[in-house]
Amino acid sequence: MSDFSSWVSARQSRFEEVLMRLLPQADVLPQRLHAAMRYSVLEGGKRVRPLLAYAAGELAGATVERVEIAAAAVELIHAYSLVHDDMPCMDDDVLRRGKPTCHVEYDEATALLVGDALQSLAFQLLSEHRLSDDAAKQLQMVKLLAVASGSRGMAGGQAIDLASVGKQLALPELEQMHIYKTGALIRAAILLGAHCGTLHQAQLDQLDRYGKCVGLAFQVVDDVLDSEADTATLGKTAGKDADNDKPTYVTLLGVQAARKMAADLHGDALEALAGFGAEARRLRELADFIVMRKF
Amino acid sequence: MSDFSSWVSARQSRFEEVLMRLLPQADVLPQRLHAAMRYSVLEGGKRVRPLLAYAAGELAGATVERVEIAAAAVELIHAYSLVHDDMPCMDDDVLRRGKPTCHVEYDEATALLVGDALQSLAFQLLSEHRLSDDAAKQLQMVKLLAVASGSRGMAGGQAIDLASVGKQLALPELEQMHIYKTGALIRAAILLGAHCGTLHQAQLDQLDRYGKCVGLAFQVVDDVLDSEADTATLGKTAGKDADNDKPTYVTLLGVQAARKMAADLHGDALEALAGFGAEARRLRELADFIVMRKF
Repeated sequence: MSDFSSWVSARQSRFEEVLMRLLPQADVLPQRLHAAMRYSVLEGGKRVRPLLAYAAGELAGATVERVEIAAAAVELIHAYSLVHDDMPCMDDDVLRRGKPTCHVEYDEATALLVGDALQSLAFQLLSEHRLSDDAAKQLQMVKLLAVASGSRGMAGGQAIDLASVGKQLALPELEQMHIYKTGALIRAAILLGAHCGTLHQAQLDQLDRYGKCVGLAFQVVDDVLDSEADTATLGKTAGKDADNDKPTYVTLLGVQAARKMAADLHGDALEALAGFGAEARRLRELADFIVMRKF
Repeated sequence: MSDFSSWVSARQSRFEEVLMRLLPQADVLPQRLHAAMRYSVLEGGKRVRPLLAYAAGELAGATVERVEIAAAAVELIHAYSLVHDDMPCMDDDVLRRGKPTCHVEYDEATALLVGDALQSLAFQLLSEHRLSDDAAKQLQMVKLLAVASGSRGMAGGQAIDLASVGKQLALPELEQMHIYKTGALIRAAILLGAHCGTLHQAQLDQLDRYGKCVGLAFQVVDDVLDSEADTATLGKTAGKDADNDKPTYVTLLGVQAARKMAADLHGDALEALAGFGAEARRLRELADFIVMRKF
């Protein structure tokens, strides 16, 4: 196992324990809701956002205990968006991470409340734990996550996505959609990790540039994988976007140009880290991982 | 018009302007989502929670500009819960405040995202405006709203409510449900208003007692009104709870005992304010209003 792979595995398994501890226990009232929240968050996903937060936190000299609270808040927002996104009135998907989606395993009303309660819990985590010695800075962290989640962030990106079904989007519009839909939260993960430590504003700006590039690259690669993979490899229903007549980088550019775009963004992401030296190694490796991944 | 009525009208109309300013404009991308958010929040409701926040803020010597940001955050949480609650997978209601519900006027996917984005906006407001000279205290305010909204607050109450359909709840269980479902957010409105100013902990505890009593009284009166009123007076579909075989204070106690319970809670609420003197007048009048209201 490479050094990077062991770093990833160690953090993924550590993070799973963090989530198990931070999520309400399933024997606490209302039990069914809490069980469904745990079902929707635990044992799932590559934890890309938390890994980015860990890496940015390490670069910024933050204590791991603070970084993983911030990472958990971001991951809960991501998890809630998947639960709501899978519901019949949105993408109507029955499979997620190889398991039945929340509304299939439980029911639609529970899935709705799971998403709602996970979002509240994210903001509870960011406000009840000490993540910075400066409370005013921590309030800014709350704001950062709120904006990244809201109508000019992730939820707004979903709305543009919905409106785009059956339409011919131009590249700048598709990009704006993904900057909102996927990019905002990936960027928030990196910045929140970094804010747990100490970096100069110029360094934060470079990290933000890195975050924008990997966020967009993530989506481009997602579109390429969705167009190529089969359902078993992907762990979710494959080819759905094309089936749903949603514009993707692949439908817009073709597979070759989409791959080229991901490679260019990868290069830009690494360039944004140029000023950091060896300490940004994990962020570089994560950029590689995001672009090279096969699932 | 009584002195209290003019106080209420002045704050209601001022608060409407606050909401109009704080909600994203409908010409900002994503326009349809922003229009639906404004549709769901503006021109609606009695604004009971904001009025309680104003009254508690006045008692605590807070500046009105701070109080109304906190009040808006609470009202956005309330508004999002109504939008989600009205969806087909929950109460499946087509009428709210005399207007078509959000998913009827727009569509289900938009209603889902409206609720999600309103919740994010609530936490954005609490973190981006200065509401206290002490940032650490303001972080506690964020936590207070997050807990009141989440699985051990409003969303949890909804989950218990769902699970109770067709069941015979005992009075303590029904009470626990409403403490979560309605009580938590009413209590948060009062405490957040108070936290914008300065009160001693003992005074905050008394306000909290007041909040618990009016929160529960609000729900008992709601059940009584729902069992008696017709749809036109109520501005929402009447008699739904009994139709849906949901336990209410009326189905459990009968109308007379439910009225008696509301009167007792009213008395307890006033008693909790005994230590405050004349300055708690508005909170007393609001307790009267909540118990005596006809709609």
